[in-house]
This record gives sequence, C-alpha cells and structure tokens, in this order.
Amino acid sequence: MAMSEPFLAIDWGTTNRRVYLIENGMVRHTERDDAGAAKISDFEREIAAIRQRHGDYPVLMAGMVGSSIGWQETPYVPAPAGMKELASTLHYIDERTAIVPGMSWQAPDGRCDVMRGEEVQLLGAHAAGLVPEEAVLCQPGTHCKWAWLGGNGVERFVTAMTGELFAMLRQHSLLRPQLGGDVADGDAFRAGVAQGQHRDLAASLFGIRAAAMLDALSDADAASYASGVLIGADVANRMEHDKVGRVYILADVYLGTLYASAIAALGGDSVLIDSHETFVAGISTIRELQE
Amino acid sequence: MAMSEPFLAIDWGTTNRRVYLIENGMVRHTERDDAGAAKISDFEREIAAIRQRHGDYPVLMAGMVGSSIGWQETPYVPAPAGMKELASTLHYIDERTAIVPGMSWQAPDGRCDVMRGEEVQLLGAHAAGLVPEEAVLCQPGTHCKWAWLGGNGVERFVTAMTGELFAMLRQHSLLRPQLGGDVADGDAFRAGVAQGQHRDLAASLFGIRAAAMLDALSDADAASYASGVLIGADVANRMEHDKVGRVYILADVYLGTLYASAIAALGGDSVLIDSHETFVAGISTIRELQE
Repeated sequence: MAMSEPFLAIDWGTTNRRVYLIENGMVRHTERDDAGAAKISDFEREIAAIRQRHGDYPVLMAGMVGSSIGWQETPYVPAPAGMKELASTLHYIDERTAIVPGMSWQAPDGRCDVMRGEEVQLLGAHAAGLVPEEAVLCQPGTHCKWAWLGGNGVERFVTAMTGELFAMLRQHSLLRPQLGGDVADGDAFRAGVAQGQHRDLAASLFGIRAAAMLDALSDADAASYASGVLIGADVANRMEHDKVGRVYILADVYLGTLYASAIAALGGDSVLIDSHETFVAGISTIRELQE
Repeated sequence: MAMSEPFLAIDWGTTNRRVYLIENGMVRHTERDDAGAAKISDFEREIAAIRQRHGDYPVLMAGMVGSSIGWQETPYVPAPAGMKELASTLHYIDERTAIVPGMSWQAPDGRCDVMRGEEVQLLGAHAAGLVPEEAVLCQPGTHCKWAWLGGNGVERFVTAMTGELFAMLRQHSLLRPQLGGDVADGDAFRAGVAQGQHRDLAASLFGIRAAAMLDALSDADAASYASGVLIGADVANRMEHDKVGRVYILADVYLGTLYASAIAALGGDSVLIDSHETFVAGISTIRELQE
C-alpha cells in the first residue's frame, strides 16, 4: 500500500535544514544541520546525498527551498488556504520530488504578507490535534508569524519583524552599548511589555537610551526591557485588532516563555506546542493528500 | 551697556557645529562646519580659535558639547522648564564661557526622555514670536523631538528614533535591497502613512518585503513608502495621545514637507518654521537672562 511507503520530509529554511524519514506518520530518523538554502548551489546533488543517507524515497520539501534563493521558485498560494490547496499546488521537480508552495495574504488595507514553510507547521498543529480548528497561532522568531486558523485552514496571517528589529537595535543602533546583556522574563522584561503595549516603538526605544542617561535603567536590564518593548508591541497589536484570547505558541521554551509572559501581561493566555511535531503532522497530511 | 556687548553662540551637535556672532539679538556673522563634539578632543583650543576668528567675546554653547562625548557633562534640567530655568542652571567653564544644560522628562508611565540643544530652539520658537505660548512643536531628524510648550516653557517632550530606524532598515535589514531609492512626498509616501497610522511597525515593515514578493510595490516606491510608514506611525502616536491640531515644524524643507504631508493626512495641520532663527532667539534670550 502506497500510504505506508516511507518518504523524506525536509524543512529547509534559509540557514538551517531538518530532514525527517517518515513512515506512517512516525519519524523513523531525523537529522538537522546548517545546510540552509542560502548556502546550497547544487540542490540536485544535495537531494541525492540525502537519499543516499536515508533511503531512496519520495521527497517533500517546504520552506525557503521554494524561494528565489532556493532550488526553484514556487508561486504562493493565497490565503485562505488549507492542506488541500497546498497538496494540489505542489511544485514538482520530478515525480518523486516536490516542494510545498508558500502562502500569501493581502489584508483589506492592502498590507501584503508571505510565508514559506511555516504554513506546514501552522496547519500541522491542527492536523496533530494540538489546536482546535479555530485557533490563533504564534510562531516567534526573526520574523514572527501570527496565523488565524479556521474552517478554510489559514484564514489570514501577519508577520512582524520583531526579532529582526531587536537584532538590528542590538548591533547597529544607539542602544548598542546597552543591549549586550541576556534577555530573560522578569521585572525588566515585563516593564518593557507594559511600555510596548502603547505601540509607540520609535519613542519607547529612544526611552531606553534616555533611561540610561537618567540612571533609571541598568545595562543589565536593558536588553530584557528592550525585548519586552518589542514583543509587547507585537502582542498588543495582535490583541488590539483581533480580541485574541488563547494563543498557541510554536516555539522553543526560551522564546515561547517570553511571548507567553507578554500575552499573559496583556490579558491573554497561551499554550506552548512543539513545532517539530507540527511539521511532521503537517507534511504527512500533505503527503497523504498528494497520493 | 552690557546687553549690547556681542557674544558668541554655538549650536554644537554630535556631527556639526554652528557658530553665531550675535549683537543685540542680530546675527552679525555665522559659520557652520563639521567639527561636531564627537570629533573634538581639545575644546579649550577650539574655543580659543573661535574667539580668534570672531572676536574675544563671551561664549554660550548648547548641544552635545554638554554631554559625555562633549567638553564637560552638564546635568539635565527636568521639564517642565523654560528659559529662566535654563539660564539659572548654566554650566560655567569659566566666567565668560558657559554651556546651556539639556532637558529631561519622565512621563507618568515611567518612560524617560532627554535632549541637548533642541531645548534652545524649541523655547526660542516662542521667543522669536513664531509660535504661541501654547504650541506643539516637532523637530524631525534622526531622533525626532516633539515638544508641548505652555506657561512653564517645555511642559513635556517625546523623542522618537524615527530617522535612526529608517537608516538602520536601509542599511542593515532584509528591506535593504528595496530601500535604495529616494524618499519623496507622493502617493507611495502617503500610502505608507496610511499604513503607519496603525502603529504596527514591525508588521507594516515586513509588509514591504512581502509586497515586493507579490509585485505589489515597486523598488522605486519602496523607500518613500517605508518612510511614510515610519513617519506615519510617529505622527499617529502623537495625535492619538494628544489631540494635536496644529504642529509647528522646525526642519529643513525636505524633512519638513514629509512631516507636513503626514500630519495633513492624519487630520492635523502644520506650519514650517526656521530652526536657525529659533536658535538665535532662544540663545539670545538665555544670554539676556544670564546678565
């Protein structure tokens, strides 16, 4: 029976890659390395090497491998879209090798959004039984994804470059001398969240510099406070517009804890779920629909 | 009569310096160069050279010359504060050479703010008769200052690092390839303002990247749009919290036009005023109060 044939699933991002050998929805083997799409020029050879290591099985890929820096650029599927839409618009390299398309969204106010790879995890969260059909999901990171799931799959989504802004401020802004410390949930982070909820980033961030001048914020606390400002603004924007109650967070414990703290401070609650499990459930569902 | 004795006023910022020879409130001579405080190590020699060029007169300085990167660090005068408070807390290097202190503000929510040099121009705008006693002033730039003037002088103020964020995005973010173009007032800028007024910077900025992916924004328009988002968010935050009607803008025509356009789009109106004139009026008033 074809359904039981193993396949190779690859979550292929810009900087990292994770390969799963999946059989009947179970992961038989997995490997993770830093061979992200940005580093690879000969994708064909990479896939051949992966098949040599893990078995000569069909390959289903998602993520930046389908972007202009990847193997072949696949068109985005416009949201609302679910598993069926993804499975029916797979981009085939050959009959045993396919890329899951990314997803796009244009909000009523004209704002555009795109994602590549996250759609598999977001939809996979419901496929794995970890979130109800209607749910708000948050995937923190360099580009934090927020998605609203419903009867049509991903109904809409928003990406906030929260993590990238933090990294830029840390490396390139006038706040650089203050932001060398660690970020942790605590009083300074939560004070930052309270400030961030005003959604006045450019002013709240300058306030960090001024607070140092006025001895009102120690350098040990500044990174946590700044992270709180950025995450607080991100969460406040989602809650302002969308009456968010429970948020399902797909993240590691570190970032997940920070977002959970901000969500709680702003009146929501959250559940942390595992993003590897959701990817496996998502890509397995697409594989089933493919056949 | 001492009042008619000329004096040398120096608007001494981080990267630039402007010297004015002032007599009876009139500028007899002025020079501008890039000998900002960050470049100078021997301030005593600089002042001697300035006196040699322009005359051996009393010197009154304002700006970053009074900061930790300047000649001597002067304490901030907490807002609300006006000309009298500045004049009575001058920092004297010697009896003929003084630095105007900067100003600080701590908002009720704990947010801190500081300025050095702008306080002279802001208060000078009223001294010059260019703005009424109660007025909202905006000084766009790397760190955009907004000040509320009233019976006590500067009642409070906010700095937004709007210009710095734009420069960082242009040089260091994923938007870099899109933001090489010129910024001008026009349809793209105003579409950015409309987006920016949601005050959801991290998401609106990612939307610029996504719009390029979806062919919804040309690279020629992206810099204007991004500037509109940032300035729109800055203006919207000020108008949201403060019912701003008329804003007096202290800026060159380029930046002044962009802020005026954003203020008009968000329901306010504005008047552009000259920041050199305001500095001269401000520093002359402090000089009069000094004697």
